[in-house]
Amino acid sequence: MKLIPKKIPIKVGNKFIAILNEKTSHKLDLFAGDRIVILNDGKGKLTAILDITEGKDVKDDQIGLYMESWEKLNVKRGDVITVSIAEKPKSTLYIKEKLEGVELSPEKIDAIINDVVNDDLSEVELAYFVAGAYTKGLTDKETIALTRSIVNHGNKLSFKKGEIIADKHCIGGVPGNRTTMISIPIVACLGIKIPKTSSRAITSPSGTADTMEVLANVENNATRLMQIVNKVGACITWGGGVDIAAADDKMIRVRHPLSLDPKGMLLASIMAKKFAVGAKYVLIDIPFGQGVKVSNQKQADDLKKDFERIGSLLGMKTKVITTDGSQPIGKGIGPVLEVIDVLKVLKNEPEAPYDLRIKALMMAGLTLEFTGKAKKGQGEKMAEEILTSGKAYKKFMEIIEAQGKKHTKLEPGAYKFHVVSPKTGDVFSIANKQIAHIARIAGAPKDPAAGVYLYKKVGDRVLKNEPLYTIYAENEDRLNYAKNI
Amino acid sequence: MKLIPKKIPIKVGNKFIAILNEKTSHKLDLFAGDRIVILNDGKGKLTAILDITEGKDVKDDQIGLYMESWEKLNVKRGDVITVSIAEKPKSTLYIKEKLEGVELSPEKIDAIINDVVNDDLSEVELAYFVAGAYTKGLTDKETIALTRSIVNHGNKLSFKKGEIIADKHCIGGVPGNRTTMISIPIVACLGIKIPKTSSRAITSPSGTADTMEVLANVENNATRLMQIVNKVGACITWGGGVDIAAADDKMIRVRHPLSLDPKGMLLASIMAKKFAVGAKYVLIDIPFGQGVKVSNQKQADDLKKDFERIGSLLGMKTKVITTDGSQPIGKGIGPVLEVIDVLKVLKNEPEAPYDLRIKALMMAGLTLEFTGKAKKGQGEKMAEEILTSGKAYKKFMEIIEAQGKKHTKLEPGAYKFHVVSPKTGDVFSIANKQIAHIARIAGAPKDPAAGVYLYKKVGDRVLKNEPLYTIYAENEDRLNYAKNI
Repeated sequence: MKLIPKKIPIKVGNKFIAILNEKTSHKLDLFAGDRIVILNDGKGKLTAILDITEGKDVKDDQIGLYMESWEKLNVKRGDVITVSIAEKPKSTLYIKEKLEGVELSPEKIDAIINDVVNDDLSEVELAYFVAGAYTKGLTDKETIALTRSIVNHGNKLSFKKGEIIADKHCIGGVPGNRTTMISIPIVACLGIKIPKTSSRAITSPSGTADTMEVLANVENNATRLMQIVNKVGACITWGGGVDIAAADDKMIRVRHPLSLDPKGMLLASIMAKKFAVGAKYVLIDIPFGQGVKVSNQKQADDLKKDFERIGSLLGMKTKVITTDGSQPIGKGIGPVLEVIDVLKVLKNEPEAPYDLRIKALMMAGLTLEFTGKAKKGQGEKMAEEILTSGKAYKKFMEIIEAQGKKHTKLEPGAYKFHVVSPKTGDVFSIANKQIAHIARIAGAPKDPAAGVYLYKKVGDRVLKNEPLYTIYAENEDRLNYAKNI
Repeated sequence: MKLIPKKIPIKVGNKFIAILNEKTSHKLDLFAGDRIVILNDGKGKLTAILDITEGKDVKDDQIGLYMESWEKLNVKRGDVITVSIAEKPKSTLYIKEKLEGVELSPEKIDAIINDVVNDDLSEVELAYFVAGAYTKGLTDKETIALTRSIVNHGNKLSFKKGEIIADKHCIGGVPGNRTTMISIPIVACLGIKIPKTSSRAITSPSGTADTMEVLANVENNATRLMQIVNKVGACITWGGGVDIAAADDKMIRVRHPLSLDPKGMLLASIMAKKFAVGAKYVLIDIPFGQGVKVSNQKQADDLKKDFERIGSLLGMKTKVITTDGSQPIGKGIGPVLEVIDVLKVLKNEPEAPYDLRIKALMMAGLTLEFTGKAKKGQGEKMAEEILTSGKAYKKFMEIIEAQGKKHTKLEPGAYKFHVVSPKTGDVFSIANKQIAHIARIAGAPKDPAAGVYLYKKVGDRVLKNEPLYTIYAENEDRLNYAKNI
């Protein structure tokens, strides 16, 4: 049956949906939710999920195509579309097996990931895969297979033999924690290559990619990334631009509504990104505390063992540290405010946040030690020398130049509000989640100059009416929203 | 922030979706997939799932509303819409608990069902509930709570005290199995009230409601249903029209993609419908065999025990039979062809399908016995007397009149094709699924006169070139599709 395409000028967001009216769907024996193959002969083909309309918006001989489908099918005026029911992908059977507790072979996991990447699974089906991993767990064999499959379905970087390729990752949730932008230039000064990809904020006030973007272009594809790293030894760029783990991004989307973090998927998600950039040495930071992803030392220790085991099975030397995540690191929260902190540390300014400095030095030191660049116990000292000498700052500037320097004004938002202490006392704790929420409502990260700047950290003495922190925003509305939380 | 509503003239099918452009969503700190409360002041309010568009289809001060949302909000020209982020329903936490193996309290299950009915859970979230029930199981306590909650979130019927209210249900999958239309008039002749609600076909060639619709109106609401049953003692009407288990219908939709049948949900789904119509006596038929839902005697026996236990906990006298489902019951498959069979049995015609007759008598007999209308061992005989006397046929005609008689021509489709045996031999088996598929492709149930008529059943002798079955269709295209399967 030949159908006339009708454009539905709406983007539904990375999925393919088509609409038939009731009569047409009856003729074709198709139902809402069915998976159909849509063919624009010689020009495009895709599998979409079918919606049925009872209205007159899509006529009897028409097929309604949302923008994503319209574009992928390269529809031009006069084209004629044919439709057939798609075989249910075999991967749906494997997903059901996983729900039933069956250990999936690498081939089956690969079939699932292949269908995820090609958008052949609906969100509901993908949610069932997440639920299977969550309720039945993933064995090490499955986790490794998942990691490899994610890697194989994206870009892979490979550097010259003999080069030391290292990478780092922090299990997020601690506001302000921008050690990457300090430790990476330090280790890069010593000839270690770090092709670092970072994420943008999803629900936080800034991701490392957002903060870096204040200073440099972070949207580099895999080829550009290789050029940058080969030129200056390191990069700090947005992972989404490099397309190294597309399958993972899609799984994260269906994990989000219930905040499901199946351990095997978490491990695969992180390790795939390290594996794909060719890292042989991986440093993982697991901060724990209230209001961050990992809430206590016991959970952090368990996760540490998992990372070490999976890392080793994947042939990567993996060093894991568990750190205090109970309060923000540094003082600035929000892209510009974090950049200000980072530059102060790199320039060795006396008022640089000391916690940020020592955490970055510790991490750089560990990387130097476990890559063999420093003797055991000497890494931190070596890192400090590089930082103090100004070499790390110089390297950071090289990285920025190589990525494409931006000339953002490094000033906090013009609209500000000081939050003062209602009484004299000691700061007992800082609520990570609430501080992040305030920074976000003030506009971070989309308004880069928005955020929160902390004057006091846990243990500090504060007097009555002394400022605790300042909220910055780029406009008055946002400031008012944030003030009134 | 005030938004101008823009109608998106598409029905997305029983869900509320709204669209903002990227800028607006940023201002409001909203993300694709977020749940938002949409208010049309004084006129309507709903919770919708947010989509973000990157295109120009929805402008900066606009909110795109699909038809369902547009209508529920009663939007008129000049209306102004406000939007706020909805609290994530508490039920999402309970769903996560279920995934983690926690037994949910009746209150928590009720909160979930309440949100299901009010469309406050997305399909992905609902899929996680199904996955929880599937992987962790539902305890009896949870199953009972689920049943009661489904009942309490729909219409409930109640008949006069002292009346015997019975009901029946068959776990589907056996083509042609239309015992309901025979056994119900029989028992209704003896003063048992049967407010029978049936389903329409989803993937089969006909549901009892589809077949009954050939003869009578089956779209009766709860009030009409009560009137019909009070007048003639029974009805056979479509469950969807009565609105007795709306929550269940929504859960079935997300169970469909992976054909997930969590036992507790299956039990609750069926028993809720019986409980809601006020049935005190319930007969459940579990056919088993190849190509039907329950594949072997062991599974059928297990399910039987579950039904008996749950039925008794709900205070319903529940009788369960396990029957042979290995081949179709009767000869006709498809609405009109099944009606022809049923009427032959009710009219005691000699060529009436004997298997359909004896199964219906057995079921009617059991109902008479366990409601106390017949002594043990005497029910079937009593049922046969009613059938043979013509009283059951008369009662069936009364039911049809009460529901609203239709004057459909009782003739199979004009386009037909005889399938003959390629050789002489005995029929060894009939593949339920394939026969159903052929009938469906021929047009059943939407084309009521389409379907398959079987001349031979298992064990029958067939000669070379003797017809095995005939495919009927209402048009040539459909016949050709079905012929060429």
